[in-house]
Amino acid sequence: MARLIKRSSKSRGLPPGSLVHVGEKKTEKVRITVIDYSIRNYEEKEVKNVEECFSFKPKPSITWINIDGLHEIDVIEKLGKCFEIHPLVLEDILNTDQRPIMEDFEKYIFFILKMLYIDEKSQEIHSEQVSLILGKNFVISFQESIGDVFDAVRERIRKIKGRIRKMGSDYLAYTLIDAIVDNYFTILEKIGERVESMEQDVVSNPEPELLQRIYNLKREMIYLRKSVWPLREVINNLLREESKLIKKSTHIYLKDLYDHTIQTIDTIETFRDMISGMLDIYMSSLSNKMNEVMKVLTIFAAIFIPLTFIAGIYGMNFQYMPELSIQWAYPAVWIVIIIVTISLLGFFKHKRWL
Amino acid sequence: MARLIKRSSKSRGLPPGSLVHVGEKKTEKVRITVIDYSIRNYEEKEVKNVEECFSFKPKPSITWINIDGLHEIDVIEKLGKCFEIHPLVLEDILNTDQRPIMEDFEKYIFFILKMLYIDEKSQEIHSEQVSLILGKNFVISFQESIGDVFDAVRERIRKIKGRIRKMGSDYLAYTLIDAIVDNYFTILEKIGERVESMEQDVVSNPEPELLQRIYNLKREMIYLRKSVWPLREVINNLLREESKLIKKSTHIYLKDLYDHTIQTIDTIETFRDMISGMLDIYMSSLSNKMNEVMKVLTIFAAIFIPLTFIAGIYGMNFQYMPELSIQWAYPAVWIVIIIVTISLLGFFKHKRWL
Amino acid sequence: MARLIKRSSKSRGLPPGSLVHVGEKKTEKVRITVIDYSIRNYEEKEVKNVEECFSFKPKPSITWINIDGLHEIDVIEKLGKCFEIHPLVLEDILNTDQRPIMEDFEKYIFFILKMLYIDEKSQEIHSEQVSLILGKNFVISFQESIGDVFDAVRERIRKIKGRIRKMGSDYLAYTLIDAIVDNYFTILEKIGERVESMEQDVVSNPEPELLQRIYNLKREMIYLRKSVWPLREVINNLLREESKLIKKSTHIYLKDLYDHTIQTIDTIETFRDMISGMLDIYMSSLSNKMNEVMKVLTIFAAIFIPLTFIAGIYGMNFQYMPELSIQWAYPAVWIVIIIVTISLLGFFKHKRWL
Amino acid sequence: MARLIKRSSKSRGLPPGSLVHVGEKKTEKVRITVIDYSIRNYEEKEVKNVEECFSFKPKPSITWINIDGLHEIDVIEKLGKCFEIHPLVLEDILNTDQRPIMEDFEKYIFFILKMLYIDEKSQEIHSEQVSLILGKNFVISFQESIGDVFDAVRERIRKIKGRIRKMGSDYLAYTLIDAIVDNYFTILEKIGERVESMEQDVVSNPEPELLQRIYNLKREMIYLRKSVWPLREVINNLLREESKLIKKSTHIYLKDLYDHTIQTIDTIETFRDMISGMLDIYMSSLSNKMNEVMKVLTIFAAIFIPLTFIAGIYGMNFQYMPELSIQWAYPAVWIVIIIVTISLLGFFKHKRWL
Amino acid sequence: MARLIKRSSKSRGLPPGSLVHVGEKKTEKVRITVIDYSIRNYEEKEVKNVEECFSFKPKPSITWINIDGLHEIDVIEKLGKCFEIHPLVLEDILNTDQRPIMEDFEKYIFFILKMLYIDEKSQEIHSEQVSLILGKNFVISFQESIGDVFDAVRERIRKIKGRIRKMGSDYLAYTLIDAIVDNYFTILEKIGERVESMEQDVVSNPEPELLQRIYNLKREMIYLRKSVWPLREVINNLLREESKLIKKSTHIYLKDLYDHTIQTIDTIETFRDMISGMLDIYMSSLSNKMNEVMKVLTIFAAIFIPLTFIAGIYGMNFQYMPELSIQWAYPAVWIVIIIVTISLLGFFKHKRWL
Repeated sequence: MARLIKRSSKSRGLPPGSLVHVGEKKTEKVRITVIDYSIRNYEEKEVKNVEECFSFKPKPSITWINIDGLHEIDVIEKLGKCFEIHPLVLEDILNTDQRPIMEDFEKYIFFILKMLYIDEKSQEIHSEQVSLILGKNFVISFQESIGDVFDAVRERIRKIKGRIRKMGSDYLAYTLIDAIVDNYFTILEKIGERVESMEQDVVSNPEPELLQRIYNLKREMIYLRKSVWPLREVINNLLREESKLIKKSTHIYLKDLYDHTIQTIDTIETFRDMISGMLDIYMSSLSNKMNEVMKVLTIFAAIFIPLTFIAGIYGMNFQYMPELSIQWAYPAVWIVIIIVTISLLGFFKHKRWL
Repeated sequence: MARLIKRSSKSRGLPPGSLVHVGEKKTEKVRITVIDYSIRNYEEKEVKNVEECFSFKPKPSITWINIDGLHEIDVIEKLGKCFEIHPLVLEDILNTDQRPIMEDFEKYIFFILKMLYIDEKSQEIHSEQVSLILGKNFVISFQESIGDVFDAVRERIRKIKGRIRKMGSDYLAYTLIDAIVDNYFTILEKIGERVESMEQDVVSNPEPELLQRIYNLKREMIYLRKSVWPLREVINNLLREESKLIKKSTHIYLKDLYDHTIQTIDTIETFRDMISGMLDIYMSSLSNKMNEVMKVLTIFAAIFIPLTFIAGIYGMNFQYMPELSIQWAYPAVWIVIIIVTISLLGFFKHKRWL
Repeated sequence: MARLIKRSSKSRGLPPGSLVHVGEKKTEKVRITVIDYSIRNYEEKEVKNVEECFSFKPKPSITWINIDGLHEIDVIEKLGKCFEIHPLVLEDILNTDQRPIMEDFEKYIFFILKMLYIDEKSQEIHSEQVSLILGKNFVISFQESIGDVFDAVRERIRKIKGRIRKMGSDYLAYTLIDAIVDNYFTILEKIGERVESMEQDVVSNPEPELLQRIYNLKREMIYLRKSVWPLREVINNLLREESKLIKKSTHIYLKDLYDHTIQTIDTIETFRDMISGMLDIYMSSLSNKMNEVMKVLTIFAAIFIPLTFIAGIYGMNFQYMPELSIQWAYPAVWIVIIIVTISLLGFFKHKRWL
Repeated sequence: MARLIKRSSKSRGLPPGSLVHVGEKKTEKVRITVIDYSIRNYEEKEVKNVEECFSFKPKPSITWINIDGLHEIDVIEKLGKCFEIHPLVLEDILNTDQRPIMEDFEKYIFFILKMLYIDEKSQEIHSEQVSLILGKNFVISFQESIGDVFDAVRERIRKIKGRIRKMGSDYLAYTLIDAIVDNYFTILEKIGERVESMEQDVVSNPEPELLQRIYNLKREMIYLRKSVWPLREVINNLLREESKLIKKSTHIYLKDLYDHTIQTIDTIETFRDMISGMLDIYMSSLSNKMNEVMKVLTIFAAIFIPLTFIAGIYGMNFQYMPELSIQWAYPAVWIVIIIVTISLLGFFKHKRWL
Repeated sequence: MARLIKRSSKSRGLPPGSLVHVGEKKTEKVRITVIDYSIRNYEEKEVKNVEECFSFKPKPSITWINIDGLHEIDVIEKLGKCFEIHPLVLEDILNTDQRPIMEDFEKYIFFILKMLYIDEKSQEIHSEQVSLILGKNFVISFQESIGDVFDAVRERIRKIKGRIRKMGSDYLAYTLIDAIVDNYFTILEKIGERVESMEQDVVSNPEPELLQRIYNLKREMIYLRKSVWPLREVINNLLREESKLIKKSTHIYLKDLYDHTIQTIDTIETFRDMISGMLDIYMSSLSNKMNEVMKVLTIFAAIFIPLTFIAGIYGMNFQYMPELSIQWAYPAVWIVIIIVTISLLGFFKHKRWL
């Protein structure tokens, strides 16, 4: 449940713009890494003090500052002052229970995104909030823990793969968001496998335990949907608003990103449809099973209860029961029993219960 | 049910703008408190007569008049006259069965909001109507009872926390609405806990009593939704309409408020989805239980009814039953009984009923 | 069903604008009343011939002509000619199977509304079509039968309550529509009571007869919704279209009316949600009941069928059954019976069926 | 199913604009009738060759050409050439598996509509495609078979009923569409009767055969909806687009037609809601029935199985059963039997199963 | 499941615009065919090297280059360079897990479409991605395998059927999309047949195996819908955007195409409605069947269990049972048995269980 509402009472009642970290502390120490690059130059370092970052600000080259860990409010505050970030933005960065948004502050654009990963143990989907600030020649990214989704981007900058070194800070921001969205497909692939395995079980083997699995998956989809849906609007707004920070040439990449987001949402909806269909099938399968059980009961009861009655009749101890002394009476009773049995079997055959 | 329709026959048939208090009388005496502040000065007092408030009107400082209790129509009427409020607005303030709305009257903006609290006894969510009138340099708030949601705001004004003393009446109104919306998260947290505890019970222990709990929670969500949904439009309208009363600098705070509202609605919808999923699971669990009961019945009946028949056969009193006098007949019958039992158990094993 | 489609074959195939009364004849005689008023003067009379109304047309004072009963086509036709009403409008007035609409003909605005009342006998909701024609200084209202919803308005005009005597014909039309919408709340209150009483029964006492009540209420809501929903659009159009017939000062009243309509619709939707929830609960309650029945059956059958088998064994008449002659055999059988019974009771206790 | 997809493989792979008749051949011979009229003159004739129509084209009077039967492609082609109709339009006229559309080609407006009728035998709803071409002074209508919906229009032209002879070709087209929409109400009335009769059966008498009827009706509604829904857009487009072919004075009639279409759709949705509600009730009724059956079984089994056990005990043949020789034992057993029976009846009474 | 998410980990982490083939390799060798035509001339050839195509680029005649097979990235890359295609477009062409889109790059328009076919073996619907690039005087089409949908178009160009030789490249692109959409109707026809056959079974013969068929069909519809829905937006965008590449005269054909797409979607939705209706009916049929089984069981049990009890009574071995020695006792018991049986049969007849 913690995954659904995190916004704790900590921040309640405080004036807006108060900096309080809301969320789990997921990393021991805050790590700050700076990558500074232009077409020709490249510099990468891990800094101890946030103040070391400030020297990059006036440089014309593109600077990417990445913060892993949000619990040192001091760091966020200093960075915010240096880069002239609005206190409300800083508050949102620290509160990890936000939905994806995009806000254009003219001097910078602020993004909140959700990075998803599957917990190895519980097999549940967890999300980590990633905030991005895109300025004229810098990008600042805030993560809750040290992740690996951005590693491929770092590699591309280092090794000059693709066009990233030739493009501006907007392309860098796009690349980071694209890395997050790309990661959704990995999550969806794993969920797809779970859906597939359930599909086979649901008709052939509708066990009670399957019900729990269906419900869990349904919950995961609710959670996933909540994280991904708003992204569509975020990227659409980015496309529509004519921000000076987004160059014309980056638009085609954003359009592509938008298509990927739509595709993610499409797949989530498809899975939801399938899971909801599975629950219907599960219910029907249960009814089918019940029908089968009932038929077995009915056939046994309907055949043997009348026969037991016949046997009961001749088990009575009346002194005057003429049949009892007739020699062929016993075989006759057997014949009656056989006839009754065959007739009833025929009746059930006719009803297609056998 | 009283929570769903309060609009009593009292006000029906009266001309529009007639002042009638519709709703429960929730406080004994009407309490009027005035807080007047500017960057440097601060004054707070509880007034006996509403007329005492009028002296604050021409002052350039920000005045916040808070009315707790709506049953003294006289008070509302006088206040309305002094601050030139339209009679229809006064009627709406008194009728506590309104949905959240916002209306811009150029000279002032009128808000109706719903403050929620959980009744300690019945654990039901109740709502209290809060009306706000935002003028150029004043805010008038109307509450049904003496609440504590606004206390934190008072404290901030007193202690000069945050920027509230530097900002205008629009920021004060924003702060009050924000306090109400912030309180929704407390409610949602408590509901979240209830949802969570139900989730564990629904598969493992689908008792009839759980059904009542699910239905109650469902009702609460209907009620909650009705109170919160219209707020989205209220704040959105506030953002779109270019009212002179709302300064440019407050917009970013309203945008933040809007995001919080969306998040509240998101969470409500998530809970609704989960509760509706739980009902499906409950139904399936019931069917599973029934299946299990049926299997036990069928197994007992299918094994012992045929055996009873066999015993019945040799309980018959025919004079000529050759088996009766055979010495090994009785053990033979036992062997038949054991074979039948084992075959049937095997059959049920094969069907996975055991 | 008659309530759902009334449009009879009478009018079919006729050219558009043909005047045919479609609907039940609900009153014996057509009654025409005229109220003519200005700030100072007031005149009210019931006229015998429709021609008597015509003299009011050129007067500058506000004239309200109310027609109760639609079956005398002649009356409608003459009135239409005098006030220059389009034949299609007259056709719509006579056809009482219309949905609420508003149409602006520049010289006049035409409204169709639905007045609702609960039939005392069948407890069903019935609707009556009310048509309004709002001209520059007149309002003509058409009702199917002599109603009492407008009486309060008449009283206000007579007694100079509120501002009605100071305002124009647009305010009069607003007041009439408001009276109709106000009446919806009375209906909803009664339905609310029915919903509430059902809510208590549905979990505790899911009788088949309750099912009929749920279905009836569901039908009523479908009917109610059909009557009220279009009203939203009607009043919204009125607010958006800048008709010369609607004065600026009336807008605030229309906005208020709009809010009331939204509130009605909100409540209807809430009831629909609750009724639909109740059906789910009803189904689950039934399953719960069935489960309970099944358990009782299973417990009885599973305990006594094996015991009967044991008794059956020793009821067999084999000559060589060593147990029969053992003295302690009979008490031993009783001990076996008691052990079997206790074990099975323990088994059912373990399964929580007891 | 043929009703759902007709588009046969005949036309597939052909270049667009190829004339192929897709659909059933519903009439033996193509019948062409021409009605030519102005305020004063009137001429009506059935022509043998399509070429006879061409002489009407240059005339200033209004010409209505009606084609019954679409299988003679030659006729359509010649007509198309003479009146300068685009080949794609002709293709659409011949393909009777289109959804209602309206297209404005400046020189003419093209409509596809669906005429509905109930098949007497199968009681299924069938649709016939009616295409209209509205030119400056002509209307061409294409029907699949010789119908009677347009007869009333013909009569009105002949007998100078209403204003039809005074108005232009646009009014004629309106009249034809109105005749088709009017006919929908006849269909809906018949369906309403079926819904009503089902409503009574569904609670009192939930037979399996009723299920088939519900499903059939549901299918009919899907089909009906598919035919009528697009009409709304068709007429709305007609109202919004400022075509030169539609005179200002006809707009009010089109608005009226639009209202009728909305009303048809409203009624269809109401029926859909009711049918869907009925299925829920049917399911609940079934569960109620099942509960009743189960109770009867349980009562019989729970009373008589224990009693049979008691009788079985004293049917055992042990030599040492002291009770057997006690004189009052037999009546005592009867007393036990009566006590057990009464207790169980009391238990079931307590559970309200009796 | 592979059909639902194909986007493999291959492409993840690579910079945007990296060319990687995502999808199954469906053909052994890449086949490149070029058709070049104008009104008078016509040339068709299969080329070995992609470079052979480049000579057609400057020609004024219309050139259609068709690529079957996407696994030779080299071919796509060279073609892309020659025709100045953006790398992101090439990436999308190679990634066969895209949803239908249309993008206007001024110099060319890029389409992704889904061609559907039914797998003969599994009877599942599979889709193949078809990408189109429409330039000023060329169309390039990319298919995953050698298909036959475009054969009819080739034939029309060769044989000068229809207007294709007279029109430009935009008409050629239209014709290709039309061929794909036309093919959807073939798929829908086959699904329609399956729906029809299920409809007959669902009431009369609700076997468990039918449940699997319903679920499979439901899945197919989810898949189909996912492929076809976005097409609506694609063609609508094409109609709204005023691209220079689309001539005015082609608009009418695109409008027609749009109508066909809407019709496809309509039919898919109709099928979805019907399948969802069928599942409800299936569930109800199951309940009906269960009811029937229960009735049979109850009738047998309720009649024979009491009778067995009667027989059991007189099978007791008490020494003092006066009835046993009465001569007419045995016939009397038979009479009691017959009376009980007839009464119970009457009772069940009354309850309509027989």
